[in-house]
This record gives sequence, structure tokens and C-alpha cells, in this order.
Amino acid sequence: MKNQAITQVIKSWEGQNKAIADIFSKFEEDRYLNEVAPGRNRGIYLLGHLVAISDLMLPLLGLGSQLYPGLEAQFVTNPDAADQPTPSIAVLKDCWETINQTLAGHFASMEEADWLSRHTKVSEEDFLKDPSRNKLNVLISRTGHINYHRGQLAFLTPKV
Amino acid sequence: MKNQAITQVIKSWEGQNKAIADIFSKFEEDRYLNEVAPGRNRGIYLLGHLVAISDLMLPLLGLGSQLYPGLEAQFVTNPDAADQPTPSIAVLKDCWETINQTLAGHFASMEEADWLSRHTKVSEEDFLKDPSRNKLNVLISRTGHINYHRGQLAFLTPKV
Repeated sequence: MKNQAITQVIKSWEGQNKAIADIFSKFEEDRYLNEVAPGRNRGIYLLGHLVAISDLMLPLLGLGSQLYPGLEAQFVTNPDAADQPTPSIAVLKDCWETINQTLAGHFASMEEADWLSRHTKVSEEDFLKDPSRNKLNVLISRTGHINYHRGQLAFLTPKV
Repeated sequence: MKNQAITQVIKSWEGQNKAIADIFSKFEEDRYLNEVAPGRNRGIYLLGHLVAISDLMLPLLGLGSQLYPGLEAQFVTNPDAADQPTPSIAVLKDCWETINQTLAGHFASMEEADWLSRHTKVSEEDFLKDPSRNKLNVLISRTGHINYHRGQLAFLTPKV
């Protein structure tokens, strides 16, 4: 039996994933090599960043290893560097679909008790003190993180 | 009996509210008269916008009338207009605290069944077809909306 509230949190996460895919299907690839605002991250960096952060949800939720461990250093540990080679937008979009489908596949079989269990970065002891440090909390905060960068990616669209 | 998932959604909304209050306590008022990026909304407009959208949650959740109906035209219906007078940052910050506390007061007494009931902009008929068009969905999407603009407001902080 699914918990309706959890189902809606998952649906919200899926909606954000689709919104990001839509943003990166709107323009020619070159557009995403632009910074979203002067001196800020490029569109392509933010896509790589979102892929890498979603990929890290696999170990964080105890669902397996990262699919694309090579992206973490470039798009999470290090800031944007326009002089470094990056995977193409097409490749990163494929990664985005794959990681999201992989996560969604796991989510489909997770029950309420799984969502309310601790994530892998919190100890049993700390979890007892704060039971909200659970897997659902990871999903809620990662959904917020996508929305945060989506607000920035909106600036790739020219102002009318 | 509270539903843990709903409690966490509310906690996430509260965290976003606090993050916005923190952004608008970081700098002198003048800084918020800047656009977040060239040709985009000013910081002050985004604060007014967030206040007005949260204020609209009162009627949308069936909790009462807007506290600040005058803000809707300026910060929701109409785009940013730097030549129009606006309330000061200090006033808008007070509105932000007041509307958030007002909503939090209502949320404290809402049960799971209340959250899963329809919001006021969906008909009974449409709600039967899609029961996720409920009050919880409003809270989830509004939390996402705050995060979206928070990503943009981050650009008011100079890049190191």
C-alpha cells in the first residue's frame, strides 16, 4: 500500500526531471555553452551537476553504486571550467534519462517503511535522534535542488 | 496522528522560507534593488512575488482571505517595473514573516485528511478524476517555486 503523500513527492521529482529535459531540448547545443548569468555556471555545467547529484542518490539511498562516477569530480567537486573538455549535451541528456529511469525503477518497489528508513550517510545513532534524516528527506531536498538550478537555467531563454 | 511524510514536506517549506529570509538579511537594502541578472527581475520584485504567492495560498487552501491583496497586482499580475514605487525591503520582510507564520499556524492543526482534500481551484468532479490535486500538492509546488527563485536570488551574492 502506497502512501499518497510519498507518491506525490515522487511525482514532483519526476516533474522536475522532465522540466530539465525540456530546457535542454529547446535550443541548439551551443546555447548551453553560455553562462546562465555573467560569471556564473554554464548551462552545460549545471546539467552535468544535476546528473552527478542524482547519480549520487543511488549510494545515498542504498540502491547501488553511481552509474557515472567520473562526473562527480568535474561537476560536483570542482567548479565550472570552460577550458576543460566536457561530455556533450547529447551525452549528458542521455545520462539524465538513464539515471532518472534507474532511480524511478527502484522507487516503484519502495514502500513507506523504506522511505522512512535512514539514508546511508546518517548513523543509526544520529537517526534515532532525528528520524527525519531518512530517504524521503533526500528525495525532497534533491527535488528542491533541481528546482533551484532550474530557476537559473531559465535565464538561458532570451527575455522577450 | 500526523503523517511523517507530510510533516517532512512542511519542514522543507519552512526551511525554504527561512532561506529566503536569510538572503534578505545579508546585504544593505540597496543591493536588492539590483536585477539578479541583466534584464531579469530585481531582488525586491522577487521578494514581493514570493510574499504574494504565499499569501494566495490562504484562499487556495481554503484558510481565509489574502492578508496583502494589494501585492498581487504589482508582484504577480504585472512584471517588474523599476520606475514604480514598491514597499521597502523591510516592509516586505515583515510581510514574509507574517504570512509564513499565519500559514504555519493553520498547518499545525491540519490532519492528513485535510492535506489530501481538494484545494479550492479544483472542482469536485475534476478532483475525483485526479485526487493528487489536493492541498498537499499546493504545498509541494509552492515549496518548489520558492527554491526556483532562491536559485536566482543567489546571483545577488558577488561571485568570489
